[in-house]
Amino acid sequence: MESGIKRKLSTEPYKGVRDFYPEDMFVHNYILETMRETAERFGYLEYSASVLEPAELYEAKTSQEIVSEQTYTFIDRGERRVTLRPEMTPSVARMLAGRRRELALPLRLYSIPNVFRYERPQRGRLREHWQLNCDLFGVFGIEAEIEIITLADRLMQAFGAKKNDYEIRVNSRTLLMNTYRSLLKDGSEFPELLRLLDRKDKMESDTFLSAWQERFGAPFKDVEATDHPPLKELTEALTERNVDITFDPFLARGFDYYTDIVFEVFDTAPDNRRSLFGGGRYDRLLEIFDAEPLPAVGFGMGDVTVRDFLTTHNLMPAYRPSTDLFLATFDTSYIGAAQELAEFLREKGLRVAVNLLDKKVGDQVKTADKLHIPFILVVGENEMKTQTFKLKHLATTDEREVPREEIAPTIQKRIGA
Amino acid sequence: MESGIKRKLSTEPYKGVRDFYPEDMFVHNYILETMRETAERFGYLEYSASVLEPAELYEAKTSQEIVSEQTYTFIDRGERRVTLRPEMTPSVARMLAGRRRELALPLRLYSIPNVFRYERPQRGRLREHWQLNCDLFGVFGIEAEIEIITLADRLMQAFGAKKNDYEIRVNSRTLLMNTYRSLLKDGSEFPELLRLLDRKDKMESDTFLSAWQERFGAPFKDVEATDHPPLKELTEALTERNVDITFDPFLARGFDYYTDIVFEVFDTAPDNRRSLFGGGRYDRLLEIFDAEPLPAVGFGMGDVTVRDFLTTHNLMPAYRPSTDLFLATFDTSYIGAAQELAEFLREKGLRVAVNLLDKKVGDQVKTADKLHIPFILVVGENEMKTQTFKLKHLATTDEREVPREEIAPTIQKRIGA
Repeated sequence: MESGIKRKLSTEPYKGVRDFYPEDMFVHNYILETMRETAERFGYLEYSASVLEPAELYEAKTSQEIVSEQTYTFIDRGERRVTLRPEMTPSVARMLAGRRRELALPLRLYSIPNVFRYERPQRGRLREHWQLNCDLFGVFGIEAEIEIITLADRLMQAFGAKKNDYEIRVNSRTLLMNTYRSLLKDGSEFPELLRLLDRKDKMESDTFLSAWQERFGAPFKDVEATDHPPLKELTEALTERNVDITFDPFLARGFDYYTDIVFEVFDTAPDNRRSLFGGGRYDRLLEIFDAEPLPAVGFGMGDVTVRDFLTTHNLMPAYRPSTDLFLATFDTSYIGAAQELAEFLREKGLRVAVNLLDKKVGDQVKTADKLHIPFILVVGENEMKTQTFKLKHLATTDEREVPREEIAPTIQKRIGA
Repeated sequence: MESGIKRKLSTEPYKGVRDFYPEDMFVHNYILETMRETAERFGYLEYSASVLEPAELYEAKTSQEIVSEQTYTFIDRGERRVTLRPEMTPSVARMLAGRRRELALPLRLYSIPNVFRYERPQRGRLREHWQLNCDLFGVFGIEAEIEIITLADRLMQAFGAKKNDYEIRVNSRTLLMNTYRSLLKDGSEFPELLRLLDRKDKMESDTFLSAWQERFGAPFKDVEATDHPPLKELTEALTERNVDITFDPFLARGFDYYTDIVFEVFDTAPDNRRSLFGGGRYDRLLEIFDAEPLPAVGFGMGDVTVRDFLTTHNLMPAYRPSTDLFLATFDTSYIGAAQELAEFLREKGLRVAVNLLDKKVGDQVKTADKLHIPFILVVGENEMKTQTFKLKHLATTDEREVPREEIAPTIQKRIGA
């Protein structure tokens, strides 16, 4: 500081990102584990890449808005332009293009990367979030959309959502192109048409209709879902799997790279009527690498919107620490004995913390309780002599005498390990 | 490109970082899971933070070399100076300072962040690596070092290391300070003395001795371990826990923030005689935040050195995919039936992938085999009629007829789920 006065360093994280204290980490891990388990149930394999990518990767395909204003891009000390990935799709495309000839198809991949966008932080929109990416590669048929949308539906249920808590809307870009082709001079105006359609619900009807007329020189006309056979097949197959979808002719999705079916999952809660996540088909994925084409259907689901959804629908799990048992000590002379008992219990599979401070037993119990550790026992003279311990369950204050050998089985039975 | 010719985009990752294809991810997850499980056995709770931190966080305490030349630091679009964290300690210090008054002590925390250093990539030194950080806060006594070094030892064993595969060396900065205090004008020269000591083994003896004489104006004299009672207590307590340590009077460690005991784990393999990881006590952690002092002992263990260690000692686990079963289809008309069977099996806990392509059964088996999926069965007319399936274990080619209800239990018994 110029003033010469030592400034106190801030304890705040960087703007728009989060600190994860153990209670936050518990929720974060719950969300990521639920994503992971569900994706693996469907045979998806995990991959990952670095958050640092060459900046060129995003300059070919991502929507313009993101490249020009929303990425973290900088020059490294070796004069390379580097970007913190704003999404995972270009990274997986790069990885697949690098091994295009060796791929076993159909290939199912998932990843849960953190992704960065430079934007004004607001509810559900932070500068860093984690995003489950599930992608099915190598399938041109509608079977791919059927599986991916089923997976999206099962994910919602894995988070405890009931059928009427969310709605899955689908649309087809091919159908939109077929319907509005006559209005376009060439394909390059199509993204603009999609963006106008996407805003329809947020505009006054008259404003939308006159904007349409002005831009495309013809009155707006509705899309007919029946004009597109794959949509019908998709709806029927999903109905058979007990997955409900709704046709939404105005659903467009932000990225330019979708090529046909797109879908989006919405929260139905009156106070949280928002898009939760979505995806679609993007068959031109590998074009920028000049590699043999590879059809793809996938989606991305962000952790922040999931967290908001869980809160809105009262589905957030209660915090449980990853520690099963706290060993208190009668005084500091029993710390060594407590650590030895802890080692014995760890070998039986228990997760055990030991007091290491000169504190009264009552204060040690308070520490364990503050950490939400479910079980506690005290190590002292009598316990060492008899090798029998008073095992206390803190939530119920239930206490029982347990010999050394029975501590682990007793706790494991109770916590269902 | 200026030439106007469309350049083919590179499929290489950014320099010095890694792509994780499913086989790489398997190893990565194995390493991280082993770290996680071992830390949790000792009652350590997981926390995390963003890889982006305010640059000021690193300008107060980290060793000069790192701040000035080795960080990724850039200016964001809002004119904030941001750094990709080069280590986790400043982040955890920031988080603890923010909640200093609410902490339940002793507090055990772990995290496995990715950290970045701008340096020339070489064996065991990449620009991005993951690093287990285990820290025990709030304990001034040697009990903290005993626990942390025991945890470090158990981690090595959790990776399958035998006692003679590695060596734990310890030293004390207090002891070094007491020994060499008379040579120093003031404390500011101490880091330089540590760095010279640290290089002793890499220098010719004569060169070291004359460098020492020249810099500190007195002949070099050896340190006596017996001069420091905590070192003796540490050695005895660890011996009781079957943890072997060696006193190394030249062990200094890179970071300036250590305040007393430091330790480092070395590989003993003749072709990989390198430092694996290390740590120590750093009691002045919260000084830069002007918060109440909090004693701390901890270490950081990187995934790249662990991977090298596993390779050197032939401890790398064989790849197993996260998919249990592949459902082949007699032809594409059975894809719907196969997906329905898959859903039934997923509810029983199996992880199931389904063929979605118009390929011969033999080619589908090749796909499953290439993905290393252990079990396969074919869905066709006869199977749907009898609801009995030929379940094949690909590695042994063992094949048996199994009714629908028995598929999941049969596989789970075999893979030990």
